[in-house]
Amino acid sequence: MIPHDSIVALATPSGAGAIAVIRISGADAITIGASVFKPLKQKDITKQKSHTLHLGHIYDGDKILDEVLLSIFKGPNSYSGENTIEISCHGSTFIQQQIIQLLLRRGCRMADPGEFTLRAFLNGKLDLSQAEAVADLISSDNEASHQIAMQQMRGGFSNEIAQLRVELLNFASLIELELDFAEEDVAFADRTQFHELLNRIEFVLKRLIDSFAVGNVIKNGIPVAIVGEPNVGKSTLLNALLNEERAIVSEIAGTTRDTIEDELVIGGIGFRFIDTAGIRETEDVVESIGIRKTFEKMEQAQVVVYLIDNGQLIIDNEKSTIDNEQLISNNELQKVKIELEKIRNQFPMKPVIVVGNKSDKLTESQLSIINSHLSTISISAKQNIGVDELKNTLLSFVNTGALRNNETIVTNSRHYDSLLKALEEIQNVKHGLQTNLSSDLMAIDIREALYHFGTITGEVTNDELLGNIFANFCIGK
Amino acid sequence: MIPHDSIVALATPSGAGAIAVIRISGADAITIGASVFKPLKQKDITKQKSHTLHLGHIYDGDKILDEVLLSIFKGPNSYSGENTIEISCHGSTFIQQQIIQLLLRRGCRMADPGEFTLRAFLNGKLDLSQAEAVADLISSDNEASHQIAMQQMRGGFSNEIAQLRVELLNFASLIELELDFAEEDVAFADRTQFHELLNRIEFVLKRLIDSFAVGNVIKNGIPVAIVGEPNVGKSTLLNALLNEERAIVSEIAGTTRDTIEDELVIGGIGFRFIDTAGIRETEDVVESIGIRKTFEKMEQAQVVVYLIDNGQLIIDNEKSTIDNEQLISNNELQKVKIELEKIRNQFPMKPVIVVGNKSDKLTESQLSIINSHLSTISISAKQNIGVDELKNTLLSFVNTGALRNNETIVTNSRHYDSLLKALEEIQNVKHGLQTNLSSDLMAIDIREALYHFGTITGEVTNDELLGNIFANFCIGK
Repeated sequence: MIPHDSIVALATPSGAGAIAVIRISGADAITIGASVFKPLKQKDITKQKSHTLHLGHIYDGDKILDEVLLSIFKGPNSYSGENTIEISCHGSTFIQQQIIQLLLRRGCRMADPGEFTLRAFLNGKLDLSQAEAVADLISSDNEASHQIAMQQMRGGFSNEIAQLRVELLNFASLIELELDFAEEDVAFADRTQFHELLNRIEFVLKRLIDSFAVGNVIKNGIPVAIVGEPNVGKSTLLNALLNEERAIVSEIAGTTRDTIEDELVIGGIGFRFIDTAGIRETEDVVESIGIRKTFEKMEQAQVVVYLIDNGQLIIDNEKSTIDNEQLISNNELQKVKIELEKIRNQFPMKPVIVVGNKSDKLTESQLSIINSHLSTISISAKQNIGVDELKNTLLSFVNTGALRNNETIVTNSRHYDSLLKALEEIQNVKHGLQTNLSSDLMAIDIREALYHFGTITGEVTNDELLGNIFANFCIGK
Repeated sequence: MIPHDSIVALATPSGAGAIAVIRISGADAITIGASVFKPLKQKDITKQKSHTLHLGHIYDGDKILDEVLLSIFKGPNSYSGENTIEISCHGSTFIQQQIIQLLLRRGCRMADPGEFTLRAFLNGKLDLSQAEAVADLISSDNEASHQIAMQQMRGGFSNEIAQLRVELLNFASLIELELDFAEEDVAFADRTQFHELLNRIEFVLKRLIDSFAVGNVIKNGIPVAIVGEPNVGKSTLLNALLNEERAIVSEIAGTTRDTIEDELVIGGIGFRFIDTAGIRETEDVVESIGIRKTFEKMEQAQVVVYLIDNGQLIIDNEKSTIDNEQLISNNELQKVKIELEKIRNQFPMKPVIVVGNKSDKLTESQLSIINSHLSTISISAKQNIGVDELKNTLLSFVNTGALRNNETIVTNSRHYDSLLKALEEIQNVKHGLQTNLSSDLMAIDIREALYHFGTITGEVTNDELLGNIFANFCIGK
């Protein structure tokens, strides 16, 4: 099953940079490397120790392609578990191409996406869920998703599954042993202990399955719908949320600011902001497309931020002599309340945060009048007032307890699917136990559950599954 | 002059990839690295040998940021000549940023563009022209410019200059010695030998200065103007020229096809194609803007390709009974001839290649009729016929003799400028020698010449010059 040819790929991002790294893995990697590399100091590259670096030149025949650093890793002490060399060359795309083409001519093959990691899996350096975590780690763009991927890559998830699997396997063996003595009607497996184990497995599976809701939003970002009329200050709010968190990041070259308008990281958690128009302007046409679209977007969101312009709720700043209550615009207040009511009726379970922007223009007493009518978070996005409170409120809707306690969180829908199937089988077994199902029938359910555990960590696998998983990797990993 | 702080930068292209490399250089680089890195196998990182690789984790306090490979280079055996570590981490931009921020907190400073190479220069690892070649190497996108940069980086140019400088310096010392004995009227420096040396220097300088014309086009690509009416097949021709050369390249991820429409590499030499409209349609308005623009573009070009549609020169394919000569459209031929005449009058020294496209639609005898009137290269861009001949013709206009003979070629305008100034001073010295100029005045001219030699290799330099040179480098190099 393990291929023996040597694969090559660019491991660093494509494009020009100071350096680029070209990686070769395979039984012949070091020999191929030695055939194109002449070290500065005379030495036999194939006889160097693992984990050493060598300065020299890449030669294509008599022609020098580049001055490079060659890293040597001898299998099994490498990422893939095979002999591996890494060529750290100058970062021109021309040089990268020339060296890769040379290596192809010397017997390497272009690596498929994720093939280095696939080989690491096939060589037992990683289990399947750890291999999947490598791709998650590379694509993680915030602290929470990074932390989960890191934990999974280090085996947190696999360990938990593997442990349950071993215990279940022990019982399965005992149950199957009973089959051999079926005519004698003995019970090797202690039914009480077995019942306890099943309960424990069920508990863990349910916790893992539950964690997927959290894991999924952490991996993909928590969708937040911002509802608000034009000019209430949505962009200013996004920028205010953004600036603080990204100020350091933007010092480093290469952080694009293109997509952050609608994806923010707050407190290490990714939030996806979905901009929606208000639903007010169309209140007379109940079935209008505008309202349907806004509601659809709110449907996808986990939290709704309802942004209003506090200034519009106050009739006139100057008439301080009249009764405070008269300062509020009943007309405007009414419109807001109707809109809020509509949203809450439509989504009774969805948290709605009412945020009153442009509060810096109002006095304390004016704000307290507004708050006596509507429970709002008063902010000034422009002056950066109240933004922290809003952040904390948003974060409070994320169940980060598991994250803080370093509990295993499931983020991968393939794992989620296997866990659901395993749970179903475990519940079948439990039911069988309660109804005194015969050992042979129970054994089948146990095997099924074990199978689903195995697909998570890769003890059970097939080419199609592996193909699907690694196709999503980047080339060079 | 040599700074002692430790600098950090991402050395690989920005963006996500399988891996990224973060580089730290400075006296404390290894200590700083050791403060954030825990090797998988217990060991003291600061006590490891140079040129070794270590697997482990980057820790920010208790939090694991990533599993990485750490490379150790001990000064002076590193690129910069200082202690250096390279952290090969997973290629997520989030991880890159986290690690760089951690290192900044641990006492590193963000490197300026080219600062690693600047330090290599200050530490005597490279001279200035070699340092400049590093940037050229990274930006080289074809074989010729790559080869020149590589040669310069390996000291080809510096060696030639340094050798002349030493010889000139010897004579300068003798001449200056004469000054000390001025009253005794002795001549330590053999005037005949000195004259020979000056001639030799003059010869080399002139050759280097002449090579700049070649070097410049090789570095920036040879400008070729394609003149032709719409629909004669310019894009098809570009694609035909392109396809063969780039077919292999495009297998490798990351080669952008965006800009190659007008920049091609033929036989390892870069060509920049400048698309121009024909000048025919405006022939009645001699001073029209259209003609001026086309002529301006041709002015910039080194070669003009005049592309015509051969099919249009033939009146009718079918009437094979009439006399061959009658097959040619005299009207169309006349137009082409007038246009060619105009171009040749305007640029008598510029090579013009007449290329007849769509020749696959014509018979051999029809093509020979056309060629009896116009000396063309008959091609079919679509059928890829005759394209090789065109390539060879284009290449024949490039003086690649120097390139083939591994002669030093000057590509850098700063070097060119210094060489011109040095030549002027050498000619002054020569003139002084012929006119029996006094030793003290001659010594001044020799010093001036030595100064200009020194600015090329960096023996003579200043902060402003260094600032200008390294500002054009990428960060991380």
